[in-house]
Amino acid sequence: MTERLLPGERIDELYRNGYRIIQNRSFFCFGIDAVLLSDFAKAGSGETVMDLGTGTGVIPLLMEAKTQADSFVGLEIQDASAQMARRSVALNRLEDKITIITGDIREASALFPGRQFQVVTCNPPYMENRHGLQNLSREKAIARHEILCSLEDVLREASRLLCYHGRFYMIHKPFRLAEIIRKCKQYRLEPKRLRFVHPFVDKEPAMVLIEAVRDARERIQVEPPLIVYDAPGKYSEEIYRIYGDNWKETADAPRE
Amino acid sequence: MTERLLPGERIDELYRNGYRIIQNRSFFCFGIDAVLLSDFAKAGSGETVMDLGTGTGVIPLLMEAKTQADSFVGLEIQDASAQMARRSVALNRLEDKITIITGDIREASALFPGRQFQVVTCNPPYMENRHGLQNLSREKAIARHEILCSLEDVLREASRLLCYHGRFYMIHKPFRLAEIIRKCKQYRLEPKRLRFVHPFVDKEPAMVLIEAVRDARERIQVEPPLIVYDAPGKYSEEIYRIYGDNWKETADAPRE
Repeated sequence: MTERLLPGERIDELYRNGYRIIQNRSFFCFGIDAVLLSDFAKAGSGETVMDLGTGTGVIPLLMEAKTQADSFVGLEIQDASAQMARRSVALNRLEDKITIITGDIREASALFPGRQFQVVTCNPPYMENRHGLQNLSREKAIARHEILCSLEDVLREASRLLCYHGRFYMIHKPFRLAEIIRKCKQYRLEPKRLRFVHPFVDKEPAMVLIEAVRDARERIQVEPPLIVYDAPGKYSEEIYRIYGDNWKETADAPRE
Repeated sequence: MTERLLPGERIDELYRNGYRIIQNRSFFCFGIDAVLLSDFAKAGSGETVMDLGTGTGVIPLLMEAKTQADSFVGLEIQDASAQMARRSVALNRLEDKITIITGDIREASALFPGRQFQVVTCNPPYMENRHGLQNLSREKAIARHEILCSLEDVLREASRLLCYHGRFYMIHKPFRLAEIIRKCKQYRLEPKRLRFVHPFVDKEPAMVLIEAVRDARERIQVEPPLIVYDAPGKYSEEIYRIYGDNWKETADAPRE
């Protein structure tokens, strides 16, 4: 399959169903956040899942392996990433399950009208402003900073894509939690489940996983903390369970 | 001092500054939530603190021992509790620091106009509805259920009592977090700090500690999880630090 690779690309293992993914270090490689989100998100038989800003398609690939969902759509604005994602889908012979569309999150509900999704996932850019952008490639900057889409764009479009009681899954930075809850509610996405991801048990969370349900009533479940490391350099049992038993650490460090 | 006690009353240690508190098992005895809240709340030199629904005055008593605040007001609607609180204040010779007022939370800002408080604390009733009330005395029911005041009453009055950038501290149930954040914001109390209290590290939180700041900007800090037990029957180091080194377990079990 190496003939599919372009200069700078490589193939990484996903440690699920033997799936593999094409990545390019000059662009944006998936991190722990995508892996955690694909485990936190639930999708059942007969359901259709939209991944907003899919990048190289890691979330649909992992969720295809982990869930019984019928089909996945990955929407990605950067055509080079979308093309890599399409080739990864083909590499794993999942063309009948996963469709990658080059397109803008801000126009997602215009591209897919009629609230046809039961599940929407998103690993959005975390950073509001443009601090620190000078050291990033444009591809990485778009993945990390709200340049091409804001939190508000993501929530508005997720709300328009989801059927009644459809579920929205996102990972984000805890310091934006009050804003996230406010804006979710504004778009009728009621926060129903939260899980904080702590690097160590005695440290502040670095990330928060959120499930919101369209038109649900106001009651939330906060889950046990997800602890990444039991000791310096030693991942917790749960992290090994999430990554898969044969996982060796190759993913990027968590995004800042 | 035993001549101050009425039938059914007893004196308990607070394990801070040698302070003691008068309680009555037929009424409502303080639990871990009051102790955690009085540790989570911060008050500095020159500041005046209002405790809404002070019960037997445990939060002003503990905060007087732990902080440099100038003075405390405890507002309590149940006169029998307020009288016990006043006698506890006298028992500890704190009449010049702590004032107990018999009065209604819903009228707090009418009783104390002019936004004269830098800090407001509240350990409110957690339960919205009246399920399970039949097995409770009226005193306990009022402390646990929103019979005489709702979350909305507490937040509205806290907002009216607090000066610009004044701080509000509350402990509550995590399942109401989305509602709490929504209503805090409605009353210009911006959630700035959250800490979840987990009975064990692998369990859901039983309580959440909240700091909100009047008129602050939207950015929140989520703290490391507060773990109550390291193992069944074995409190964590942090719980011992919070309760005080000489603490022996006499407090009530956490409220449901």
